[in-house]
Amino acid sequence: MTPSATGRGAAKSAGNGRAGRRPGGPDTRGEILRAARKSFADKGFTATSIRGVAREAGVDAALVHHYFDSKDELFIEAMAIPVDPRQIAARILDGPREQLGRRIATVFLGVWESADGQQRMKAIFRSVVTSDEVARIMREGITQMIIAPVSRALDVPDAHLRVSLVATHLIGVALARYLVELEPVASTDLATLIDRLAPVLQHHLTG
Amino acid sequence: MTPSATGRGAAKSAGNGRAGRRPGGPDTRGEILRAARKSFADKGFTATSIRGVAREAGVDAALVHHYFDSKDELFIEAMAIPVDPRQIAARILDGPREQLGRRIATVFLGVWESADGQQRMKAIFRSVVTSDEVARIMREGITQMIIAPVSRALDVPDAHLRVSLVATHLIGVALARYLVELEPVASTDLATLIDRLAPVLQHHLTG
Repeated sequence: MTPSATGRGAAKSAGNGRAGRRPGGPDTRGEILRAARKSFADKGFTATSIRGVAREAGVDAALVHHYFDSKDELFIEAMAIPVDPRQIAARILDGPREQLGRRIATVFLGVWESADGQQRMKAIFRSVVTSDEVARIMREGITQMIIAPVSRALDVPDAHLRVSLVATHLIGVALARYLVELEPVASTDLATLIDRLAPVLQHHLTG
Repeated sequence: MTPSATGRGAAKSAGNGRAGRRPGGPDTRGEILRAARKSFADKGFTATSIRGVAREAGVDAALVHHYFDSKDELFIEAMAIPVDPRQIAARILDGPREQLGRRIATVFLGVWESADGQQRMKAIFRSVVTSDEVARIMREGITQMIIAPVSRALDVPDAHLRVSLVATHLIGVALARYLVELEPVASTDLATLIDRLAPVLQHHLTG
């Protein structure tokens, strides 16, 4: 399990800032991320646009595109999410339907089992639980990038509720295993844990 | 669903402090709770004793017993838990084994559905996620008062892991529904939610 990093800290290319209202200064990338976080918080994920973030940061939209391929990527970087949720969704959907529960558990816990992923996921969890603003931003982004595509692919009645309940279980397991260290969940080996979760998550999805 | 309050704020009787190192002053109860929280944090639930808490608070053990029936009650009051976990365990275990999953979902969500219960549970959740100390105290107390008795009654291999996984699912549902307000889990009616959770939790326990 090697969650692909999203290349934080690296611009798309090493080239200079393109033509625009303002060339890329030393912390242009940081300013764009700050403007993006503000926009995601104030307007939500759907209503946020690259153009709006550029205006807020006082730079040209082309410069935002120089650093970030898309609004999705801007969100991932702004919230310091350790893996690309679109890749997570793709990996979950790649395989037989009757193994969905197992793949979801494997992919999700894989992110947490890496040291870097765990550290960043912990920070996100703590922010979500203590800040209504971060909670609002995260719930919209994750819904759009993971829960919605998996629900569409599932194609059963109440798919959205089913997939959301799977998400709640995984969130609870992560909280218990990595943050609260509730035993025996915290020290159970990963394979056993996935074996326990797979049929239960599958029941939520297709049972 | 009427979770029984644990009578916070009320002494066991209105009588004066009994004989002891120090009679009950105006905030004796508060001092005992502070000493209890310190002891639960420093020594854990198991190693904490009424006698030790009394010593820490500078009062006689009889005075602690005047306010709190037992160490369990001291824990419940010190951590501001909105319902008595021992009663929760008793209600979960009272009924047919094949309905365990449904009873657990009903009892647990019932606490959260009351306005007072929800407010206090939210405060506990936020503290658990942000403070390693509170996390340690809560995980030991809840393990001893709910997870352990339910696991013993279940009497299957890996009972403790099974019951703990049920707990993770409920924790995740509570987090999503009441703190993060993730849709559609947040607005699904309680009966539908319990119908979805019951067979899945049952699978964890006896599947």
